Amino acid sequence: MMNVLIVFAHPESESLNGSLKELAVDVLNDEGHQVQVSDLYTMNWKAVLDKDDFPERMNKELFNPIAEQLNAVEKDNIPLDIKREMDKVLWSDVIIFQFPIWWSNFPAILKGWIDRVFYNGFAFNVGEMKLYNEGLLKGKKGMLSFTTGASRELYTDKGPHGDIEVLVKYFNHLLFEFVGMDALPYFAIFGPGEMSEEERENELDRFEEIIRNLP
Amino acid sequence: MMNVLIVFAHPESESLNGSLKELAVDVLNDEGHQVQVSDLYTMNWKAVLDKDDFPERMNKELFNPIAEQLNAVEKDNIPLDIKREMDKVLWSDVIIFQFPIWWSNFPAILKGWIDRVFYNGFAFNVGEMKLYNEGLLKGKKGMLSFTTGASRELYTDKGPHGDIEVLVKYFNHLLFEFVGMDALPYFAIFGPGEMSEEERENELDRFEEIIRNLP
Repeated sequence: MMNVLIVFAHPESESLNGSLKELAVDVLNDEGHQVQVSDLYTMNWKAVLDKDDFPERMNKELFNPIAEQLNAVEKDNIPLDIKREMDKVLWSDVIIFQFPIWWSNFPAILKGWIDRVFYNGFAFNVGEMKLYNEGLLKGKKGMLSFTTGASRELYTDKGPHGDIEVLVKYFNHLLFEFVGMDALPYFAIFGPGEMSEEERENELDRFEEIIRNLP
Repeated sequence: MMNVLIVFAHPESESLNGSLKELAVDVLNDEGHQVQVSDLYTMNWKAVLDKDDFPERMNKELFNPIAEQLNAVEKDNIPLDIKREMDKVLWSDVIIFQFPIWWSNFPAILKGWIDRVFYNGFAFNVGEMKLYNEGLLKGKKGMLSFTTGASRELYTDKGPHGDIEVLVKYFNHLLFEFVGMDALPYFAIFGPGEMSEEERENELDRFEEIIRNLP
């Protein structure tokens, strides 16, 4: 029995990403796990970390996000939309990011979830060197699940986009591992737009198998 | 004589990033170049690519951003805030991104500038394979200029964050080179928070020298 948070970041609920999210919810429930979904587009998630996130600043002259985050955690003075996400993170054993790769990277709304939720003092503490093995979210697991426009062979060492394994390793390391989490193997569907219906179904089956056997 | 677009993405104008942006503007003007700045926070830039960007969709059932972008370009039906940025891009010979590294990546507001401005059909054309050497922004140059929280030695092959050179190579390749631009060497100030005032001044001097001799 695990608690699983799915952070879903596609603007179209009827997309393949939407199907993957729905499938994960169904399979996890079927296996007896608890699931929460943060559907960022439907929530109209505020993507931009800015001064508005810190109405009671420690330093009103100069805005330093990292310093203000720590202060806000200590004063328990965190905007409600962020606080709700932090509560889901604390509740979760596993966090799955479900998203389309845009520019070989997170969509802005998902990057903004990371920027705004993983506070200094909550997910890590840079002053006390609570990073990596000492990260504040130690014990949790994280998984990137994404779709790409390009097919698999374009994302190889010799392919035009370069080796996706290296890129994902950076993303896993600098996100999940940075805050002490274990990175699970990523799941990706490459170039679904060029697949037959049957090939897409096979990919969904492959995903179901992975989700059913989530470690 | 060049046209230079600076895309600036820091929430605090008085930050070191703000100083770097100001310095670049001054030096470029001094050298006789033309400069435009997109100050994303001050512009209150909409970071999230969503259905609202496409009021007259080709496919009203299923939202596919890549397909709708191409259609919007062909119909010349692009929201004004995006159109303005596209015009700056077309005008520019060089684009400089000035930003703080957050999570070893772009701040969400800057990622959202890329997501929303570099349309399929404008910066590249995936259907016609207008990518990389055939990218639609061929001939232009791009430069990443950023600050990091961590010091230089943490961003090495053996350091905890991994080799920044590899990560930046991916970013340059999958952003600038993808659309046909040449990537200029990046500029970074590592760990300015731990620097003395004199060291920071030296870093600004180093930046000035690079900007003055922009190829």
